[in-house]
Amino acid sequence: MSTTLTWLEEFAAHSSMDVSVVGLDELPGWERDPATGNIRHHSGKFFTVEGLEVSRPEAPVSGWTQPIINQPEVGILGILSKRFDGVPHYLMQAKIEPGNRRGLQLSPTVQATRSNYTRVHQGRPVPYLDYFRDTSRHRVLTDVRQSEQGAWFYRKRNRNMVVEVAEEVELLDGFRWLTLAELHELLAVEDLVNMDARTVLSCLPYGLQDGEDDDFHRALARSFDPRLPGVHTMGDVLTWITDRRSVTDVVAERIPLNSVRGWELADGRVSHETGCFFDVIGVNVEARGREVQGWAQPMIKPIGEGVVAFLVAPIDGVLHVLMHARTEPGYADVVELAPTVQCTPENYWHLPPTARPAYLDQVLGADPAAIRYDTILSEEGGRFHHALNRYVVIEVDAGFTGPHPEYRWLTVHQLGELMRHSYYMNVQARSLMACLHSLTTTRLTTASRALLGSR
Amino acid sequence: MSTTLTWLEEFAAHSSMDVSVVGLDELPGWERDPATGNIRHHSGKFFTVEGLEVSRPEAPVSGWTQPIINQPEVGILGILSKRFDGVPHYLMQAKIEPGNRRGLQLSPTVQATRSNYTRVHQGRPVPYLDYFRDTSRHRVLTDVRQSEQGAWFYRKRNRNMVVEVAEEVELLDGFRWLTLAELHELLAVEDLVNMDARTVLSCLPYGLQDGEDDDFHRALARSFDPRLPGVHTMGDVLTWITDRRSVTDVVAERIPLNSVRGWELADGRVSHETGCFFDVIGVNVEARGREVQGWAQPMIKPIGEGVVAFLVAPIDGVLHVLMHARTEPGYADVVELAPTVQCTPENYWHLPPTARPAYLDQVLGADPAAIRYDTILSEEGGRFHHALNRYVVIEVDAGFTGPHPEYRWLTVHQLGELMRHSYYMNVQARSLMACLHSLTTTRLTTASRALLGSR
Repeated sequence: MSTTLTWLEEFAAHSSMDVSVVGLDELPGWERDPATGNIRHHSGKFFTVEGLEVSRPEAPVSGWTQPIINQPEVGILGILSKRFDGVPHYLMQAKIEPGNRRGLQLSPTVQATRSNYTRVHQGRPVPYLDYFRDTSRHRVLTDVRQSEQGAWFYRKRNRNMVVEVAEEVELLDGFRWLTLAELHELLAVEDLVNMDARTVLSCLPYGLQDGEDDDFHRALARSFDPRLPGVHTMGDVLTWITDRRSVTDVVAERIPLNSVRGWELADGRVSHETGCFFDVIGVNVEARGREVQGWAQPMIKPIGEGVVAFLVAPIDGVLHVLMHARTEPGYADVVELAPTVQCTPENYWHLPPTARPAYLDQVLGADPAAIRYDTILSEEGGRFHHALNRYVVIEVDAGFTGPHPEYRWLTVHQLGELMRHSYYMNVQARSLMACLHSLTTTRLTTASRALLGSR
Repeated sequence: MSTTLTWLEEFAAHSSMDVSVVGLDELPGWERDPATGNIRHHSGKFFTVEGLEVSRPEAPVSGWTQPIINQPEVGILGILSKRFDGVPHYLMQAKIEPGNRRGLQLSPTVQATRSNYTRVHQGRPVPYLDYFRDTSRHRVLTDVRQSEQGAWFYRKRNRNMVVEVAEEVELLDGFRWLTLAELHELLAVEDLVNMDARTVLSCLPYGLQDGEDDDFHRALARSFDPRLPGVHTMGDVLTWITDRRSVTDVVAERIPLNSVRGWELADGRVSHETGCFFDVIGVNVEARGREVQGWAQPMIKPIGEGVVAFLVAPIDGVLHVLMHARTEPGYADVVELAPTVQCTPENYWHLPPTARPAYLDQVLGADPAAIRYDTILSEEGGRFHHALNRYVVIEVDAGFTGPHPEYRWLTVHQLGELMRHSYYMNVQARSLMACLHSLTTTRLTTASRALLGSR
């Protein structure tokens, strides 16, 4: 692992990006539509910042309007896989994005919007893209369309692909072959493995895990076993999801950005009057070592650091994860399964107490001895500016809570089955699945984690 | 079966509906929005008729505009099940809808839009609805959200439910308990089992079938067996669907109805300038034996009779169905699996020959000896006026065609697995699945089919 960090540091020396915040009205190539106020690129490509009107008559907050990113095109997030001496390796890229807090992250082999690969921005061709556009000579290990942040994106989805090749693959500068075990170790490093890599890794079909040496790891390994039943059958899980999608009353309609209420454009950014949630900002980018040399774009800059947590518990010796049937206005079909807790705590101070997320107190007050994973990771740096979340896995006793209509205990195998299909598991849950899976091969002590965190 | 037909006839004697076509501008309770021309109910409920702009740059017809029904609310299509002497029975309703060509059809126990059960139209309560709204005391056999016609509806979906009860159920006038075998026989009767009943029945989890007495039925029974592989693995099928959804370039945007081009409002209806596709008409309804006594509404009236066909073939003794990855503009995610052929042949005369549907000639010219199922059935009579399709299952030799990127051979078991999830199988394919399944219990001769057709 340390050699990978060294390689990243060396690569960082000749790859940099200067990002400066500029006013939304001063973004070269971008304009505000005079009628709607929507922010769009003059080519009509990439994405637009529009408004969304959300109505949830039965929720504690029964309605609101907000800015939202509309990016209808579906991109490719692809990792190339190849066996060396029989061991699968994954080709990862050292990549900077303008929203990254500190430089390079480990990214998938390919991370390309359709505008990227149809070359709207006149950049260089995307390396390795052909392996994903024509898979006929290769073995497709996973290929599934998954959603992204439904609070910030309107129905955004990307294609998550892992393609295994047998042939020789040229190793380009900025790319490196890593094993799954190495990737799992690197997942414990603060802000290193990017969101796109995490979601693709989570969609890899996982096999049975070895038996392990303590109760937690034994229960985790058993949770991958399709022969061991969960507390709910798969049929019951699917029925529950249908029910939540049907009884949840939500309407989300796109509206002009200049019709959003409670938000204002001042000082070149769009902000909520409470100062909460997020700002829409503009950035100017000067890059070395990327497809193009300079560009400008709007970004979403979240306020505050979020918490994304799985509460997990062994039930009859099989680890279960407490999943939340969560509604976000940008989802294609009302509800997706989300982590037990997913929020930015400081967004709740001005909301009614009934709006406070369930189980947040259990997460914030968890016994350190029960924390199985705890790392700061960031969301997509191509659209979100310094969007950091604390990703946590906490072991609890399943008896600590009674039945709740919006929550169910599922096994890792069941979650894996759901991830073979689109739009069941949200992007934060998929990230945490990659983290949870990493615990099958890593045994990080608090000390080593602190060391890694300080890279 | 004949007793069911007699019961229907008796019920028809005291249940009737007068439907008269009236101009769209003369529909009580409905109005045209002055700005957009969209047709809406004054309550804002039910549905609206809007415009849709479709762009498919790589297709033979690269773009068009059309009227489309927008009905965002998700209704319930529910069948109640109960065992009598250990045999499952299903509670079916004799129901008239204004679009029915001739009177009563067999419908699910409950067929309710949200407007129905929130009582927007001030009608009587929907019988048996509570079994589906609160399932806690019952056994849910299936509960899945599925799409409906993507050519006429914008992202319409309904919840398909089968709920088994153990308790006594009051039998109301107009309802009847039928076994699956009885329903299968009735599926061979022309225009009798309505679309909603067919789609709910198709979503029932089917078990293994008995071995059968001829090659076709033996291959059909084996096609339900999860242990017998299809020519593609389930992983390959899912990957193929993702690929088709990703490479198919389609954008469908809602536009004002008065912006559709090539369509005109004349004589109180909206028609295409070629006379093809469909008209939007208005109807006035006087009903006896329904929730409300009279109402008016717009409907879609398709031009011509459609053909909906499965080509099926035994491969290694297991029946496979040739499925089409089809794009309709109203689908939530680009592509759903459709029958091998699904079209109205006369809509193609003015289109380029490359737009002619694949395999249509094989269907229209099929050897009568190879036809396993052949019945005229209609689409939802609550929105579509005399929308009749010829549903056909034709046995072929799998070798008759080579690989085609938009088509794959799947087993019945694989199709059943896909139907546990939303938006994989379109409504016409689900109807044909119910018909195909009916062949496991029925042996209709051409003579008996003709007799039944003449009810």
